[in-house]
Amino acid sequence: MSKTERITPRTLKGFRDYLPETMIPRERLIDTAKEVYRSFGFAPIETPALEYLEILTGKGSDETDKQLYRFQDHGGRDVGLRFDLTVPLARFAAQYAQGLGLPFKRYHIGTVWRGENTQRGRYREFMQCDFDTIGTTSVASDIETVLVVATLMRKIGFERFTIRINHRGILNGLLEKSGLADKSTEVLRALDKLAKQGEEKVRAELADSAGATDDQIEQLMTFASIEGDNDFILKEVAALTKGNETGEAAIQRLQTVLSGLSAADVDEQVIQLDPSIARGLDYYTGIVLETTLDDLPEIGSVASGGRYDNLAELYTKQELPGIGASLGLDRLLAAMESLELLPEAKTPADVLIAYFAADRLEDYLRIASQLRTAGIRTELYPEPKKLGKQLQYADKKGFRIALIAGDDELANNSCQLKNLANGESVTVSLNEEAGELLPALNNLLGE
Amino acid sequence: MSKTERITPRTLKGFRDYLPETMIPRERLIDTAKEVYRSFGFAPIETPALEYLEILTGKGSDETDKQLYRFQDHGGRDVGLRFDLTVPLARFAAQYAQGLGLPFKRYHIGTVWRGENTQRGRYREFMQCDFDTIGTTSVASDIETVLVVATLMRKIGFERFTIRINHRGILNGLLEKSGLADKSTEVLRALDKLAKQGEEKVRAELADSAGATDDQIEQLMTFASIEGDNDFILKEVAALTKGNETGEAAIQRLQTVLSGLSAADVDEQVIQLDPSIARGLDYYTGIVLETTLDDLPEIGSVASGGRYDNLAELYTKQELPGIGASLGLDRLLAAMESLELLPEAKTPADVLIAYFAADRLEDYLRIASQLRTAGIRTELYPEPKKLGKQLQYADKKGFRIALIAGDDELANNSCQLKNLANGESVTVSLNEEAGELLPALNNLLGE
Repeated sequence: MSKTERITPRTLKGFRDYLPETMIPRERLIDTAKEVYRSFGFAPIETPALEYLEILTGKGSDETDKQLYRFQDHGGRDVGLRFDLTVPLARFAAQYAQGLGLPFKRYHIGTVWRGENTQRGRYREFMQCDFDTIGTTSVASDIETVLVVATLMRKIGFERFTIRINHRGILNGLLEKSGLADKSTEVLRALDKLAKQGEEKVRAELADSAGATDDQIEQLMTFASIEGDNDFILKEVAALTKGNETGEAAIQRLQTVLSGLSAADVDEQVIQLDPSIARGLDYYTGIVLETTLDDLPEIGSVASGGRYDNLAELYTKQELPGIGASLGLDRLLAAMESLELLPEAKTPADVLIAYFAADRLEDYLRIASQLRTAGIRTELYPEPKKLGKQLQYADKKGFRIALIAGDDELANNSCQLKNLANGESVTVSLNEEAGELLPALNNLLGE
Repeated sequence: MSKTERITPRTLKGFRDYLPETMIPRERLIDTAKEVYRSFGFAPIETPALEYLEILTGKGSDETDKQLYRFQDHGGRDVGLRFDLTVPLARFAAQYAQGLGLPFKRYHIGTVWRGENTQRGRYREFMQCDFDTIGTTSVASDIETVLVVATLMRKIGFERFTIRINHRGILNGLLEKSGLADKSTEVLRALDKLAKQGEEKVRAELADSAGATDDQIEQLMTFASIEGDNDFILKEVAALTKGNETGEAAIQRLQTVLSGLSAADVDEQVIQLDPSIARGLDYYTGIVLETTLDDLPEIGSVASGGRYDNLAELYTKQELPGIGASLGLDRLLAAMESLELLPEAKTPADVLIAYFAADRLEDYLRIASQLRTAGIRTELYPEPKKLGKQLQYADKKGFRIALIAGDDELANNSCQLKNLANGESVTVSLNEEAGELLPALNNLLGE
């Protein structure tokens, strides 16, 4: 085949290949998320990447509509690639509600597609990692949602993080009390920009879009800037919403969440009430939460969610309240890289067995099988190339130990274990049951 | 919202939702595959679902072209959804060949899409589960590929299976010897239909499409119907191809594979040489393999693959020989269901803690956390509903144990563990460290 006939290998703009060094920590993170979700009784589901277009556009905003990958399939149906996992969950819950049994707790880790402007550093294909509890309004599931996030962060390896919690009812109560109840969406939108755009712009937006008076704006700004420990914040918001039922119920709920978390042994320092959190989306109605890394607050929330009143009203008359949250995989991995929490390796295996003596393949196969049976991930180099080349390969891929045995060693029933981090070697005996080899390897790998 | 405005929740024809009871064994199977792949040093990669159309159609047959989901994206590019993981691997290998370091061992578990005719019971969205070793022609990687399949089958839980192995060089040698070398594709296609269409039709096709004479057809049918143990088959094919280099090299290679597998402790009964296997695809050039379940041979191969000379010639001038195989997830799961190897549960958790005494939420949260810390997957029912309702829920979801503690029990620092399989209950003490509870639970779960 001539060169001119070849097709240039390349990916579409906004789409990514994951090489082993990126994919290994990614899979580890996803495995950890699954392990934690399962430990709380969340069950996995999967839904198709392609859905009827009307399912996807049913609730979409203009922006998501514009970003939808849509086309006609072979049967002339209008279809689209899912842009999140929430719309599929709503469709799924409506479709199977009778058989699922409520409450229904599910996790869903899957790819979604959005034709975003890549200049903003966004990808057009990315993975979401959601968990939700639907069919219950109980405070126990509020507590559990926060608890799952706290457990996840620790299992992933973060020590210093903060879960910021708010309740929509506090602001709603304040708005009811001050006569702005019908402007809650506009007020939420404006306040959500406080951190990014600053006080002045938010004040202007409150006046413009919500028609708030100077007094009302003042009160809202006081509210949004309350800072302090959880007890102080509860006291301040209680004073602001005093006498309003919505506000008082929200404060009561937050108190129950805080004491529940403490009973479940969550470190108090990890939980911070934060009245400024609104989570933009209109459909949150109760608790909302965000999670920031204390050492990298600038990357934004790495795990967010909240409670909603009615998940699937577009598809069923059955009311399905619930609460859920989502892990930001890309942000978490970027943070782990910044904080040097990611081991660098291009192989999942720890040990490389060098194929040293050309006619000893069966010996190497036997040793490799023994190690794998003992739970040690082991690769056998496939060709009897020069040892230097094989060790270069081992270094490049990030193996931790090379097992080297030539004719002489094998005749003596022994081998060398080379620690590739420091270059040191030890000689150990090889017997049928790998009785000396295994402890020596585990010792080196445990270092 | 009125009922008429609602959108009917439904999926596209040929697409599937996975409910928890289907998804739990599916995830377990995929986890097992990953664990085995990793234990041999195969590293994960991922590629985009969407590719440039020219990448996908480059090597496609007319049939795959017709089945492609293709459209124009927002930028007017012609794009398509991948229809397998082999084309993306070829593109990937060509694109990163310099940096990857050869040999390159990767696994890739991902969704692919084909607009198939669903009347044949095919799905339009399904998952492939491939592993490949590229950049080497060594027999060690042939042996390893079979070894991975054998290890996988055992880890999944199958005892009775057969890996059928052949080498393309045997038939090629025979064809060279009998003067049909330029008709190898036609002959392969015909022979591949032997099991499904019977001898008569295959004879006719050999005459028609390969122009084989009666003598040649006779020889080919003799070859394809050789049966017996591995030694007998080796002897027979050696006689048929005697004097032809291609055939003799292939036999030599198969012998090395068989003794390598035996050194790696693979049960001999599991490996069966089978000269009739061709694996349809033209690009296999060496070892080919299929795997059948002894108790369900009719479902066909559940793990198949083979060696190829040049993976990525469409995208690079670099020659990339390799070998790979693929696990048939859907077939395996169907088989596991038929053979009753699948536990039926709609929850990944083992224990349900009943929320019995309304004002004891914090106690339940504390107990749940203790159990999870000890590695026991535990769900807390989120509402203080009637106990009967909670136990119904536990039954329906498939929990194994219900932990029940009312005010009296909690006051006495004790709880009941109800074995939901047989209805028996035991009372155990609850102390700070769950010192009696954990052994009692582990005892019940180990049953």
